[in-house]
Amino acid sequence: MSGRSGGPEIDQLIQLLARLPGLGPRSARRAVLHLIKKKETLMVPLASALDRAVDSVMTCQNCGNVDTISPCHICTDPKRIASGLLIVVEDVADLWALERAGIGAALYHVLGGTLSPLDGVGPEDLNINSLVQRVETGDISEIVLAVNATVDGQTTAHYITDQLQSFGVKISRLAHGVPVGGELDYLDEGTLAQALKARTNF
Amino acid sequence: MSGRSGGPEIDQLIQLLARLPGLGPRSARRAVLHLIKKKETLMVPLASALDRAVDSVMTCQNCGNVDTISPCHICTDPKRIASGLLIVVEDVADLWALERAGIGAALYHVLGGTLSPLDGVGPEDLNINSLVQRVETGDISEIVLAVNATVDGQTTAHYITDQLQSFGVKISRLAHGVPVGGELDYLDEGTLAQALKARTNF
Ligand SMILES: [Zn+2]
Ligand SMILES: [Zn+2]
Repeated sequence: MSGRSGGPEIDQLIQLLARLPGLGPRSARRAVLHLIKKKETLMVPLASALDRAVDSVMTCQNCGNVDTISPCHICTDPKRIASGLLIVVEDVADLWALERAGIGAALYHVLGGTLSPLDGVGPEDLNINSLVQRVETGDISEIVLAVNATVDGQTTAHYITDQLQSFGVKISRLAHGVPVGGELDYLDEGTLAQALKARTNF
Repeated sequence: MSGRSGGPEIDQLIQLLARLPGLGPRSARRAVLHLIKKKETLMVPLASALDRAVDSVMTCQNCGNVDTISPCHICTDPKRIASGLLIVVEDVADLWALERAGIGAALYHVLGGTLSPLDGVGPEDLNINSLVQRVETGDISEIVLAVNATVDGQTTAHYITDQLQSFGVKISRLAHGVPVGGELDYLDEGTLAQALKARTNF
């Protein structure tokens, strides 16, 4: 039902692209025709970029970021390590959003989601144990809980604060500028930088 | 400015995906994170599907369809050849849309656009000469001009009708169901089938 007149190779490409977020069968067909039209300048480079990504991209075992090495470039950056600042985010998209906001030297910890009792997501489903372990090592002086301003995000922030209370580390959260119910990744970069600057103690 | 925290491989992948129609930088970042999350079930298959497409997809030298052989499967299908029916479309997306509509055995000719004096698109920029040559061979008994119901589409239909007049072939166009100013590829399949059934002489 996609582009079967073009043979199974084209069909399969359409079906796979249609599984990307934001694309459906129709936009996947358009994308494939565009790729075929721009074969040398877009399809060939995209094919090799994907091949390289398949071979090289991995999840950082320390922080949950995606990179081509583990520990990742962020985790091994002396300036970031020296900052003692660890920003906890729900997913890698939020990490990227904060990096684009140019917030300065910081380390990250990617939770991989939020606690969500209704969806059956408990602490053991998130990278919370590894966060506690990182704080235990003693190199972190401040933690910013940069979780989304949703109910689940705030539940998660409270849970993490409880877990980290005994380590005497300063814990704050993003404050001004994050609209209630809003998701970080949708905010403009100025708002994000502002929210970080005006962070409040938790 | 995309996902530089993830290294150049991820950055390049985002930049290339952002050039697909319907995707921007933000949705390209989401797509890449989704691909990384679904590495084995989506990224690896997509990478090999793209590699196969790069190696195998070509434009049919006869009709302008995309396929893995030239002449394509449509052009060499005995049932379609026997039909004597040739449907002229603007682009491959329209060919696919008509095939999905299940209109029965027919050959196609992809113009590659429409005449557009304002944009400097003349007859020599479209596959019109090759259309005339196909009709000259005498195996075509009827032509349906399935061009979009836009001003340029109708200009193109008139021009082609003039070019083919001397061959004594029946020329019709899609009629009922195609909204004025509408593009074929957006129509539902029933409407398209209906429009073809009720085609009128040109
Ligand atoms: Zn890391
Ligand atoms: Zn063909």
